[in-house]
Amino acid sequence: MEEAGQSSHKPSLAKLKLPPPAPFLGLDELSKWPLYRATITEFVATLLFLYVTVATVIGYRHQSDPKVFPESSQCGSVGVLGIAWAFGGMIFVLVYCTAGISGGHINPAVTFGLLVGRKVPLIRALFYMLAQITGAICGAGLVKGFQKELFNRYGGATNTVNSEYSRGTALGAEIIGTFILVFTVFSATDEKRRARDSHVPILAPLPIGFSVFVVHLATIPITGTGINPARSLGAAVMYNKDKPWDDQWIFWVGPLIGAALAAIYHEHILKASVLKAMGSFKRNSVANGM
Amino acid sequence: MEEAGQSSHKPSLAKLKLPPPAPFLGLDELSKWPLYRATITEFVATLLFLYVTVATVIGYRHQSDPKVFPESSQCGSVGVLGIAWAFGGMIFVLVYCTAGISGGHINPAVTFGLLVGRKVPLIRALFYMLAQITGAICGAGLVKGFQKELFNRYGGATNTVNSEYSRGTALGAEIIGTFILVFTVFSATDEKRRARDSHVPILAPLPIGFSVFVVHLATIPITGTGINPARSLGAAVMYNKDKPWDDQWIFWVGPLIGAALAAIYHEHILKASVLKAMGSFKRNSVANGM
Amino acid sequence: MEEAGQSSHKPSLAKLKLPPPAPFLGLDELSKWPLYRATITEFVATLLFLYVTVATVIGYRHQSDPKVFPESSQCGSVGVLGIAWAFGGMIFVLVYCTAGISGGHINPAVTFGLLVGRKVPLIRALFYMLAQITGAICGAGLVKGFQKELFNRYGGATNTVNSEYSRGTALGAEIIGTFILVFTVFSATDEKRRARDSHVPILAPLPIGFSVFVVHLATIPITGTGINPARSLGAAVMYNKDKPWDDQWIFWVGPLIGAALAAIYHEHILKASVLKAMGSFKRNSVANGM
Amino acid sequence: MEEAGQSSHKPSLAKLKLPPPAPFLGLDELSKWPLYRATITEFVATLLFLYVTVATVIGYRHQSDPKVFPESSQCGSVGVLGIAWAFGGMIFVLVYCTAGISGGHINPAVTFGLLVGRKVPLIRALFYMLAQITGAICGAGLVKGFQKELFNRYGGATNTVNSEYSRGTALGAEIIGTFILVFTVFSATDEKRRARDSHVPILAPLPIGFSVFVVHLATIPITGTGINPARSLGAAVMYNKDKPWDDQWIFWVGPLIGAALAAIYHEHILKASVLKAMGSFKRNSVANGM
Repeated sequence: MEEAGQSSHKPSLAKLKLPPPAPFLGLDELSKWPLYRATITEFVATLLFLYVTVATVIGYRHQSDPKVFPESSQCGSVGVLGIAWAFGGMIFVLVYCTAGISGGHINPAVTFGLLVGRKVPLIRALFYMLAQITGAICGAGLVKGFQKELFNRYGGATNTVNSEYSRGTALGAEIIGTFILVFTVFSATDEKRRARDSHVPILAPLPIGFSVFVVHLATIPITGTGINPARSLGAAVMYNKDKPWDDQWIFWVGPLIGAALAAIYHEHILKASVLKAMGSFKRNSVANGM
Repeated sequence: MEEAGQSSHKPSLAKLKLPPPAPFLGLDELSKWPLYRATITEFVATLLFLYVTVATVIGYRHQSDPKVFPESSQCGSVGVLGIAWAFGGMIFVLVYCTAGISGGHINPAVTFGLLVGRKVPLIRALFYMLAQITGAICGAGLVKGFQKELFNRYGGATNTVNSEYSRGTALGAEIIGTFILVFTVFSATDEKRRARDSHVPILAPLPIGFSVFVVHLATIPITGTGINPARSLGAAVMYNKDKPWDDQWIFWVGPLIGAALAAIYHEHILKASVLKAMGSFKRNSVANGM
Repeated sequence: MEEAGQSSHKPSLAKLKLPPPAPFLGLDELSKWPLYRATITEFVATLLFLYVTVATVIGYRHQSDPKVFPESSQCGSVGVLGIAWAFGGMIFVLVYCTAGISGGHINPAVTFGLLVGRKVPLIRALFYMLAQITGAICGAGLVKGFQKELFNRYGGATNTVNSEYSRGTALGAEIIGTFILVFTVFSATDEKRRARDSHVPILAPLPIGFSVFVVHLATIPITGTGINPARSLGAAVMYNKDKPWDDQWIFWVGPLIGAALAAIYHEHILKASVLKAMGSFKRNSVANGM
Repeated sequence: MEEAGQSSHKPSLAKLKLPPPAPFLGLDELSKWPLYRATITEFVATLLFLYVTVATVIGYRHQSDPKVFPESSQCGSVGVLGIAWAFGGMIFVLVYCTAGISGGHINPAVTFGLLVGRKVPLIRALFYMLAQITGAICGAGLVKGFQKELFNRYGGATNTVNSEYSRGTALGAEIIGTFILVFTVFSATDEKRRARDSHVPILAPLPIGFSVFVVHLATIPITGTGINPARSLGAAVMYNKDKPWDDQWIFWVGPLIGAALAAIYHEHILKASVLKAMGSFKRNSVANGM
C-alpha cells in the first residue's frame, strides 16, 4: 500500500538497468552444473510437495470416515482447511528453500508462465517440467508405497470434477486459480518492483504460498484444486483409475492457459509494451518514472 | 515493540523530508499512463478478490449443507475460519502484488480514507472506486456464471444483517471493523514510520491482510462482514434480492465513516497537528524527534 | 537458526553502544507530547483488542450453541482455533501499528516486564497501565453495548478457572504463558540482537502475535487464557458476576510473576550480568563478541 | 522465485568468503560463557516447546472427548489443525527468540544434522542434545504436574504408531518429515544464500516453523508426528507406559536418518562437492557465480 503517486519521487528508478529477456533456447546452459543442480532441486521439491499434500489428503479422508470412526464424525481430522494449509504451507517452505537454486517453480504451469514471459529459456523449462512430473509421480508413489490400502480406498488424492459441477466450471476454476498464482510469481520476481519496494523480494515466498492456500479454499469443492499439472498427473498415475484420467486434460489445459494469461497481463498490459505505439502518451509516462 | 523512549536517539528523523500532501484534484495525472495502469490493476485485483471469496463462501455453504451431505454434518467444508482466511489471505496476496502499481487499495473505503488523509488526489480516488465497483461486480458475476444454481441457493455471499442483531449493531461493527483496517493501512504507509522501523515497509501487506482476517472472525456472525463497499455491492448486484438491497446502505455508510475516523485519528490525533496551537508543548516534542 | 559459532566473526558488535537503562521515574517526559500520544495509542489499541476478541468469543459461543442451531452442531462457528487466531492475530496487527509510537505493549504484564527490565520508566509504565485498563473496559463495553443479551448469556468472554482444573494449575498456566509472551518481547527488542540478526527487528510483531496465539491453543481449556490483566479485568468489569471476580487475582498475579521472570531470565541469566563476579570467565566471553 | 538465470549477474558472490567448517571437537568452547548460555537457552526453549504442545494435545483430547462433552461432539476443541499449529507456531516463536543465542535447534535431530554438515562442533552438539532431552522431560513433566489425571487419561501426548499403520510406514514418515525440517534449516543458514537473497536471513524462523506445521498435517494420523527425538522421549518418560517405549526407537532412528540425509543432500549434492573431480564441468560453474 505504497502511495501510488510516490514513484514520481524516485526518478532514478527509470534508469534501473533491467536484465535482458532470457535467451530463447538457452543451449549454452547444457554444459554447466547449475542447470543440473536446479533440475535436481525441482525434482526433490516436487516429490516432497506431493508426499506431504497427498499424505495429508489421505489422512484427512481416513480420519473423517464415519465408517471407521463413527463417534468422532468429521472433526477428528485436520479438516478441509488443513488440506488447504498443507498445499499453501508446503509451497511457502519449498519456494523459500529452492528460490535461490532453481527459482522455486515446483509446478509446470509456473515454469510455462515464466517461459511465456521470457524469464526462463526453453531448454531449462523442459528440464524443469520433466523433473517436476517425475518428482510428482515419485512423491505420490511414496504415499502409495507406505499406505497402499488407504491410498486406493480414499481416491489417491486425485483431481477430478465433482459431480455437481460442469467441466466448464472446473476449467474456469483452474484458469483463474492458476492466474492468481502465476500473477503473484511475476509480481514477486519483477526486477523493478524488487528494487523499489523492500517487501517484494523479502516476503516473496509467503504470498506465493498464500496464493496457493486461498485458491484451494475457493476451489477444493469443485475439483480438489489442481493449478499444478504435475500434482494432478502424479496422483493420477499412481491411482490409475478412469475418472482422474478422463478429467486429466482439464488440469493441464486450465493451468497452462491461466499461466499464459498471467504472463501476458503482467508483461504486456501492466508493463504496457502494447502501448508503445501511443508515443506521446508513453513519453509522459517514462518521464514520470514509470 | 520498539522501546518507546528510543526515538530520541535518532534526532535526524526530525529533519526527514516528507512528501507534500497529494494535490486535491490531481488533474495532471489524466494525461499519463500510470493512472490508467493503476486503475486496471484495481479492477483486476478486486475482481479476483470477489471471485475467490465469494466462491469460498458458496463452497462452504454447499459442503456444510445437512440436506446435501447428511452424514458429514458441518465439517466437510473449510468452515467459517476458512472463510475468514479467504478474505484476509486474499487481501495479503493482492496488496503484495499491487502495492507498487496502484497502492493496493482494492476497497473504496480504503481509497476514501486515503482521500480524507490527503494521500491520494480526488480524480485518482474516483477512478479507483469505479474500478473497484465494476471489478467486484464482475468477480461475483464470474462465480454466478460458473455455478448459478448454487450461487442463488446459498445467498450469493451477500452481506446482510443477521436476524438476531439490530441494524445499529451492524453499523457499529462496520465502522469499527473498517477503522481497524484503514488504521493499519495508514500505519503501513506513513513515511516517517517507514523510515524509522524496518518492519513497517517490509511486512506491510501481511498485517493489512491479518486485519481483514481478524475483523471477519469477530463480525461474520453479525453481517458476514463487509468493511469493503465494493465487496458488498458486487455480491448484491449479482444476487439481486430484497434483503441485501435493504441493508446495502449499512455497508457503505459504516465503512466510509470508519475509514474517515481512522484517517482523522492517524493524521490529526497521532500526528498531533490539532495541537499546533499549544506552541510550547509542541516545541518540546519536535526537539525530541517526534 | 544462525550458526551459533558465527557471532565470533563479527567482533565489532562487542563495541556496539547500547542505550542506557531507562531512567527510573522518567519525570521529564511529563511535559512532552510523546508520552501522551503513546498513552492515547495504548488506550485505543487495547480498546480495539478487547472489542475484536470479545466479539469473536461471543460470536463463537452463539454460533455453536446447540440450543440455537441444533442442526449445525459446533461447526457453524470459527471454532476455538478461530478464537486463538483472533487474540494472536490482533496482537500482531496492533503491535505492527503501534510499535513505533508507544512500543506496542497493549498489556499491563508486558509493561510490567519492561519496567522490571529497566526498559521503560515508572511514570510511563503507570500511564500505559491506566490506558490499557480503561481501554479494555471500553472495548468490552462496546461489545456489551452492541449485543447486550448475547454478551450476558454467553459469559462475557471472561477468564475463569474451568471446573476441572485447580486454581494452582490456572496460576501456573498464566505464569508460563506470560513468560513465553514477555520473553518473546524481550527477544524482539534487544538492541544487540536487532543489530546482529536482520530477522529480529523486521519480523518482530509476527512472533509476538504468534506467541499469544500458541499460548491460547494450550490454555484456553484451562482458563480461556488471560496472560493480559487488562483483558481479564475489562471483561470482568462489564460482565460483573461473582465467578470472574473470585478468580480475577489469578489473572493479575500469574501474568505479573510470569513477566517478571521473563525479564529476569532475559536480562540477568542470558545477558549474564549475574556472572560479572566470575571475572576471568567473563573476559573470555567479551573477547568472543558475546 | 528468483529468476534462476540471474545469479550470473552477481559474479562478486563467487568470491564471498565463507566461514570454515566448525572444528570437529570444539574443546576450546568449554572455557567460554557462550556455550553455557546457549545450552541454558536450548534447555528452556525445549521445555517451553513441550509444555505448550503437550498441553495443547491433552486439552484437545479432553475437549473433544464425547464421554465428557456428549453434546458438543468433537468441535469444542482447537482440533487436529490446532495441534499442528501449536507445534509449528511454537517452533517459529522459539527459533525467532533463540537463533541469535544458540542457533535455535530445540531438537536433537536438527543438532545432529548440523553436526553431520560440520556446522556445529561435537562438544557443543552433545551439550545441546543433553539440554534438549532434559528440557523436554521437564516440559512434559510440568503438564503432568499441573493436570496429572488428564495427562494419564489422554495418553500423555506420546508418539506411537497408530494401529492401522506398519512400523515401516511410521519410520518412513519420520525420515521424510525430518528431512523436510532439516533441509529447511540448512537452506535458512547457508551463508551464500543469506548473502544473495534477502528473504533467506530475514524470514528464516517462519519457514522453519511452517515446515514443522505441514509435516504435522501429513503425519499426525500415522504417529502423532515426532521429527524431534527430545519431544518423543520427554512425553514417553512422563507417561511411562509400554506402547510408547516399544515404539520409541522409531522416533530416534527415523529423525536421525532424515537429518543426516538432509545434511548430505544440501552439503554434498546441492553444493556439488562430490563433483569436484569433474574439473572442467566445475570450472564453468564457478565462472558462472555458482
